[in-house]
Parts: sequence; structure tokens; C-alpha cells
Amino acid sequence: MTKFDEATRAIRVDDQTYDVCLDNGFSIGGPLNGGYLMAAMLRAVVDESPHEHPVSTSAQFLRVARPGAARVRVERIKTGRTAAVSRATLIQEGQAVVEALVTTATLDPDAVPVWSDGPSARMPEPDECVRLPDPKPESGLTLNHQIELRFDPPTVGWLKGEPTGRPEMRAYFRLAEPQDPDPYVLALAVDAMPPVVFSAGMRGWAPTVELTWHLRALPAPGWLTVIGSGRLISDGWFDEEVEVWDSAGRLVAQSRQLARLGRG
Amino acid sequence: MTKFDEATRAIRVDDQTYDVCLDNGFSIGGPLNGGYLMAAMLRAVVDESPHEHPVSTSAQFLRVARPGAARVRVERIKTGRTAAVSRATLIQEGQAVVEALVTTATLDPDAVPVWSDGPSARMPEPDECVRLPDPKPESGLTLNHQIELRFDPPTVGWLKGEPTGRPEMRAYFRLAEPQDPDPYVLALAVDAMPPVVFSAGMRGWAPTVELTWHLRALPAPGWLTVIGSGRLISDGWFDEEVEVWDSAGRLVAQSRQLARLGRG
Repeated sequence: MTKFDEATRAIRVDDQTYDVCLDNGFSIGGPLNGGYLMAAMLRAVVDESPHEHPVSTSAQFLRVARPGAARVRVERIKTGRTAAVSRATLIQEGQAVVEALVTTATLDPDAVPVWSDGPSARMPEPDECVRLPDPKPESGLTLNHQIELRFDPPTVGWLKGEPTGRPEMRAYFRLAEPQDPDPYVLALAVDAMPPVVFSAGMRGWAPTVELTWHLRALPAPGWLTVIGSGRLISDGWFDEEVEVWDSAGRLVAQSRQLARLGRG
Repeated sequence: MTKFDEATRAIRVDDQTYDVCLDNGFSIGGPLNGGYLMAAMLRAVVDESPHEHPVSTSAQFLRVARPGAARVRVERIKTGRTAAVSRATLIQEGQAVVEALVTTATLDPDAVPVWSDGPSARMPEPDECVRLPDPKPESGLTLNHQIELRFDPPTVGWLKGEPTGRPEMRAYFRLAEPQDPDPYVLALAVDAMPPVVFSAGMRGWAPTVELTWHLRALPAPGWLTVIGSGRLISDGWFDEEVEVWDSAGRLVAQSRQLARLGRG
């Protein structure tokens, strides 16, 4: 079992309750990463569902989650032949920290798209892409040790004080420990990059309020390509869209989150 | 009170319960339109919230809703200074028909964007746009009488057997009865056009499974511009993105839905 699979494991307590042990390896400076929390919740939802894949997840991030024991409460609110819908709540110290609505269904691994758009931006070759410098231990950015990101250079120009001036972030993504991508890895991938607004010249903690992502196909082994962008920064709010393409060139996940601008 | 305001009215029964009377004027051939249902639910959520605007709504469409009496159950799951989160359930004949998570906050009507992208497609002038023919009474498409849509001609080429071959649909939108757009009208606008897949050559009932939309600004009076597109049609599923621009050229709403392909 890889560290990621272990860290997202959901152990069934009863029909509606799962225990999870939130791992301090997925922290972004104290709080745990939202994609990681979704992955753990989705393991519980899928275990409880008659279907195999989390095709649609809408999560509201209510409070900051910390490493340690937590529970996932799963309540099935519809069971259909094609799809089921569950309400899932991540609970820590008696408080709901993430609330999600999840549609599960069973995707066909051999599905051939009827119609597909291409990626919304072109990526340079991997060897022209760049890593971010290792975070300082005191930053608490332990997530960076679990994942490998190779960025399209202009989208991390903000690190040298040269933001592109528009919300964007693009990278190749994989887990640091070798593991083929699956729907849970995609849950992590849609929320793994720095906020797109850093590229528009902003900084600071940018808490996700709502994140919805759809699993569109089962990913092929290999690097994922993660393309992030935004449309509007206004009134303290911004949107961040992420599309994830697999190594076979298929769109495997789409997300949009609404987040607050940092005050940092 | 306009017909739309009347048809989306939510009457408080107690702290967590609102009565609504679902109007047969918002039917799309029997089932009621999803945007209309969201608008009625959001009236209840906002009434119960300390904040003024529904900034983020994620709705799972569980069952078909019919005209007649229904209830909205509202449960506040977080109350913050900037935002509150509520769970809302539309219940008809004892069954949950729509389940939603809603973030409410209070937007600044005078907010000036820090950064904004432009529309993702260019619209022709309104006088170059076209209406759809009036639906036959037996079609049950009563929604068409409540709204005015003026389509970018190629995106309704499918009506004459000339689909563009890609998922897209673009129109100017307003209510038929004069009424300035507000957040509830936007809830209707994000789900008011025919499915984008019609333009890719598909037909038939295309039920929404999940729809998330974000209110990005309070709309100015006048026509709205509604731009719809999709990225992938595969395995019986498709995505539909809609962006809504107001007459002042501001992005006021963004939505994405995941829907099933019709079998028609």
C-alpha cells in the first residue's frame, strides 16, 4: 500500500460511518490540503455505494482540518441504476469540517469520446518545465514531498517577482511515490497547485470555499497534465478552474473552485 | 410582484421549513426546469441566512419535480462573518427531489474587478440573433413563454438539421415580463437554454445530474448574455459550462453542469 492509499484509507465502522486518520504529510502549512480531504471522503463514499467511481463531487470547506483522527459520515440520498448520490461529512472533534455531495456511477474504462475539446493551453515538453524549490521545513508545506509538479515556467514567474498578470498555473503532476493515477489521485490533483491568483500578482492563504470536480474518464498510467486558470478576481473572491489530462491525451477531470483572496 | 417572483416565493413555516408552490409555467415538457427549482430554493436559503446573496450553489437533481406544492428544508451548517453555508432540500410528496449546498455572503454592488477575463465567445448584435419558433402547446415547454432568448444563429443550426458539430449555445436572455435581473433570475439563466449537445448533433431529454453555479456580481438591468459550451461528450455523460454577462459587460455568473446524454 502506498503512503497516499494509506493516508486516504477509510475504515468502515458501520453503515454510515468511516474512520480516517488524517496524515500530516498532506499539510499546506498547518491546515490539510482540500484535495487530500476529498480523496479520503470519496473512499468512504465509494465503499458504501453500489457504484464504483466518484463521477461528481461538490465540497464545501467549512473549517480547517488538522492531522489526526476524523470520521466520515455517509448518507445515501438516492440509489439509481446508473448513478447514486450520497451526502458525506468529514467530522473532526465533533465538528463538520467538509460537507460534500457526491454522485457515484460506474465508468467504462474503454469509453471512446463522442466529442472532445483539446487542452485549453499548450504545455511545453516536461524537460522544459521547472520544479519549485523545496519548501523550508518550518513552512509546514509537507504536501510538496508527496507530489511532483513540473511547472510551465511563466506560470511560476511570480516566484521571482515576475507574475504573468493573469490567473493561471500549469504543471505536470504525479505522486512522488510511484503509483498509477486513479480517481482518488485526481481528487488530489485538482487542488494540488499553488492558487492561480499567485500568477496574477496576489499572495497569501487563499481558502477554498467551494470546489466541484467531475471525473470524466479513468486515467491512464503516467504523468497527468494539470491546467489551471481563472476568469474573475473581484470583491474578495476568485474562481479557479482546473482541467486534468492523462498521458493518453484524454480529459479525465474538470474542477472549479470558488475561493477567498488571501490577506497576506 | 412579477410572475417569476411569485412562482419562486418561499413562505416561511418555521426555522427550517419553507413552503413553495411550484408553477406549471416553468415546465420543460412535464418536468420543471432545474434553474427555476434552484431559484425557489435559494429564496428560502437567503431568507434564513444572515447574508444577502447566494454566492455558490451546488445542486444534485435527484428526481423530477412537478408543478404543485413542495417544501424547502434549510439547515445552516456554518455561520461565518463573511459567509454562511446551508444545506437545502426540495421535497415533494415526501421525497427529496433536489439537494443543494449553498454558500451565502453579501456582495458589494459597487465592486470593481481586480482582474477579469473577457467573454469566451463573441456575440453578434441582438438584431442579428434569432428566436426559436414557439413550441407546440402539446410539447409542455411552458418555460419558453416566461423567457426571451435571442440566439447566436449558428448555435441553433441544429433546428434546421445543421448542427455546428460541437457543444455550444449562445443567446441574449431576459424574462418575458419586464423585470431587472437579480441572483434568482441568474439561477434560471444558467439552465435556460437547450442543452449544448444539441449543437453537437444530439437530441433528446438530457437530465442534469449536478449543477454548480457561482454568483460573481450583482447584475445590471438589461439583457443578459448567456454563453454555453462543453468540453467532453463520453460514456453517456457531458459537461455544460455557462457564463453569464450583464449589460455592463461584467461576468455575473458561472456554472457547470454534468448531465446524461438523452436516448432520444
